[in-house]
Amino acid sequence: MTHLQQLRTRLAEISDLNHVSALAGWDQQTYMPPGGSAARAEQSATLQKLAHEMFIAAETGRLLDAAAGEVNRLDPDSDEARLVSVARRDYEKSRKVPAELVAEIARVTGQAVDVWTEARAASDWKPFSPYLARVFELQRQLAGALGYTDRMYDALLDRFEPDMKTAQVQAVFEAIKPDLIGLVRAIAAKGQAVDDEVLRREYDEKRQWDFGLEVIKRYGFDFKRGRQDRSVHPFTTSFSINDVRITTRVDRQFLSPALFGTLHETGHALYEQGLRQSLERTPLADGASLGMHESQSRLWENLVGRSRPFWKFFFPVLKGFFPEQLADQTAESFHRAANTVSPSFIRVEADEVTYGLHIMLRFEMENDLLEGRLKAGDVPEAWNARMQESLGITPPDTAQGALQDIHWSSGLIGYFPTYQLGNLISLQLWDKINADIPDLARQIEHGEFAALLSWLRANLHQHGRKFTSNELLQRITGSGLNPAPYLKYLKAKYGEIYDLA
Amino acid sequence: MTHLQQLRTRLAEISDLNHVSALAGWDQQTYMPPGGSAARAEQSATLQKLAHEMFIAAETGRLLDAAAGEVNRLDPDSDEARLVSVARRDYEKSRKVPAELVAEIARVTGQAVDVWTEARAASDWKPFSPYLARVFELQRQLAGALGYTDRMYDALLDRFEPDMKTAQVQAVFEAIKPDLIGLVRAIAAKGQAVDDEVLRREYDEKRQWDFGLEVIKRYGFDFKRGRQDRSVHPFTTSFSINDVRITTRVDRQFLSPALFGTLHETGHALYEQGLRQSLERTPLADGASLGMHESQSRLWENLVGRSRPFWKFFFPVLKGFFPEQLADQTAESFHRAANTVSPSFIRVEADEVTYGLHIMLRFEMENDLLEGRLKAGDVPEAWNARMQESLGITPPDTAQGALQDIHWSSGLIGYFPTYQLGNLISLQLWDKINADIPDLARQIEHGEFAALLSWLRANLHQHGRKFTSNELLQRITGSGLNPAPYLKYLKAKYGEIYDLA
Repeated sequence: MTHLQQLRTRLAEISDLNHVSALAGWDQQTYMPPGGSAARAEQSATLQKLAHEMFIAAETGRLLDAAAGEVNRLDPDSDEARLVSVARRDYEKSRKVPAELVAEIARVTGQAVDVWTEARAASDWKPFSPYLARVFELQRQLAGALGYTDRMYDALLDRFEPDMKTAQVQAVFEAIKPDLIGLVRAIAAKGQAVDDEVLRREYDEKRQWDFGLEVIKRYGFDFKRGRQDRSVHPFTTSFSINDVRITTRVDRQFLSPALFGTLHETGHALYEQGLRQSLERTPLADGASLGMHESQSRLWENLVGRSRPFWKFFFPVLKGFFPEQLADQTAESFHRAANTVSPSFIRVEADEVTYGLHIMLRFEMENDLLEGRLKAGDVPEAWNARMQESLGITPPDTAQGALQDIHWSSGLIGYFPTYQLGNLISLQLWDKINADIPDLARQIEHGEFAALLSWLRANLHQHGRKFTSNELLQRITGSGLNPAPYLKYLKAKYGEIYDLA
Repeated sequence: MTHLQQLRTRLAEISDLNHVSALAGWDQQTYMPPGGSAARAEQSATLQKLAHEMFIAAETGRLLDAAAGEVNRLDPDSDEARLVSVARRDYEKSRKVPAELVAEIARVTGQAVDVWTEARAASDWKPFSPYLARVFELQRQLAGALGYTDRMYDALLDRFEPDMKTAQVQAVFEAIKPDLIGLVRAIAAKGQAVDDEVLRREYDEKRQWDFGLEVIKRYGFDFKRGRQDRSVHPFTTSFSINDVRITTRVDRQFLSPALFGTLHETGHALYEQGLRQSLERTPLADGASLGMHESQSRLWENLVGRSRPFWKFFFPVLKGFFPEQLADQTAESFHRAANTVSPSFIRVEADEVTYGLHIMLRFEMENDLLEGRLKAGDVPEAWNARMQESLGITPPDTAQGALQDIHWSSGLIGYFPTYQLGNLISLQLWDKINADIPDLARQIEHGEFAALLSWLRANLHQHGRKFTSNELLQRITGSGLNPAPYLKYLKAKYGEIYDLA
């Protein structure tokens, strides 16, 4: 056996442990009876511990060195060479963080999530404040351990978006912010020109579920290699390229969670199902980054699922499921309702236009907290000021303000920007796709998605983690991260819907 | 940390791996999409390999030795002392089998199951014959590695029924065989005095499911610590004392699979849910043996679920679910139908009276094959001769004869007798239970099972694997394995139903 083969065997077993860990998580959120939670926490901890120990063991390093020698005559962009370099990158990162720091972060965030849960329920920042301070203190230590040259935030962002720099993200966010704020104000000035009342009627849950399945079958979700279940918080997970699971939730009084949630998770799932089979059981069998992953969920949820061609085809289908509720609607009126823009307090309910502003606020505050310009105790006030500045509204309480997200209590600092990177990337890809498939809109009007999915598989999905998101954007679109297509899209789409000058 | 604590930590992690392995198996048989099977096989193999390696490591032996020194002043029947001795017993057994033999058995049985599947479909023994020969050859090597003093079969039986000896089982089986055959003949002489036609009407699947849930809720199955799902082959599995899962299948044209299958699996599940909480994540958190486990499934399925008091209470409930189908029935007629005795070819469909004879046939043949008195090529003929001798019928083809069970192709030699041991043990316990709870029948007539379940928990369930089945029988009933209650029960019950002299 070559060293590369030995390395592959070792990484395959680690991949098995990680996939079973994902299965344990999926079960926990779908079918596990409440009594199972204590044991499940132990089981997940044991799996993660064993996978981590096996990965950071000296033997892994030895095999990485030896395998590097074996692949150095190959094309550096070959699967083999990239497997070794990506595994090396992961290995270095994992080894840099002391076990005691990992344990301390786990301990503190475990408590912080509990405290946050209660603090949010009581809409009271005070008890959470010292925990947030401690979380950021540990994140500073984490950044120090991981290392960075420019910004401390670089080290944290890199965990979710390899090779993306804070300065790059900041420049892009600052470039789009004035236009976004301008667009939000112009739309607000139009009053209630569009509203989503039709989405908030009474819709049978089973029919909502079935309509969602109809759409994602047409999208190309492979039910032989995946399934959909219910959970409180929707998510996508995979235990193999050939076993990709999505979940959704259904609200009887609101169509959006099940419908757009399903399309969103399906975008993630199509990425996972589209990985090249030869990457199975290697560290390359995953999305390039969280931002690139989000670009796929946003593409299928928004660029396709909230488009006029989409509703031309699917509105009659939806009306077949809900003839009474939709008797007064047309494809056109429904499409408008699905694209209502309105400044709101809660990120996860935000529309395409305001969403980015929610993210930028968090990105800026994370940097301020990390670099000491903002104290934990001052967060709610700073939050409200920024909300007023960007969206023109002030949360009535902290639960609808700085306490709304679980991320900070969980120690997920550097994670938020990937959501907005996903939006930006999705439009950069969309521009190129429409250039390559000129009649895409007509295909979507006919419920045809095969060419779109094939394009995504050939250009993006199949590569998995072989390339970083910056590398992929360069290869696919010929340029790095570029916010122009995103702004052009929002201005054109909402300018038309809201009849802006 | 004491050595006992270190040992506990190590065993707890191994328990976690085994439980996650069980979860992977549960998912495979309930929700996994077909595409997931290749990856799942790798994941299960990795988990089993890691759990095995961790268990047989020298470090485990060192901790076992050191912990034994720490517990030797304790009561040898204390949880701590038994934990160390049971773990030691498992450890010795696991260490005795060379890794190459384990691998070879896995390889050969993997192929043998595939060949068996095709052979059964074609009802053709020939292609399977050499595989069976090879399976038994490897089982001889396994018995040699495990060691035995009297019969080769002892070593294999001990894997499923610790401390039970072949001679003991053989003596009991031989003692009951003539009476069983006599009872079958006496019943056959009565012709079609009882039949199960009423069970084979058209029953809505959802209502069958819901009726089953009603019964097992009353039995005491804790849905906060367990759940029921569908699968092709029903089974019980657990990932914790507080997460015990059963599965069932539903046949629109036959009530028995869902109804009695659910009661059977619930019997297993109540055992698992009844383990003492302090045994969680130790090797003691399981049933004492397969036979003892089966005694619980048979008790709730047959001794309770096919009893007259049970149907006095539940027939009106069932009739509420199926008023049309059961319009011509009474609790009495339904109870008789549920206790139809009829010699048949397939073990899993056999009734209470004939079931034991199916098992004895397999037990005898396994010993003959193992000890060289029977050749693989002669199995179908020997099978048919024994069927004729014990049940008075001859299978029309090998699929309904020697090819019906998966066990032999899977290398599960020594497993079959535990089914019949379960029947015998269930009656031995039942005798004692009825002595301790004199009005049990009246309680069951009122749908009350709390006293029964409490008795089982206090006397049996809570102990887990602390004691062997022989030890438990001795402690609970004051005697070792004794077939008298079983024969007495069958003769009384079926003598009455079939109006025998």
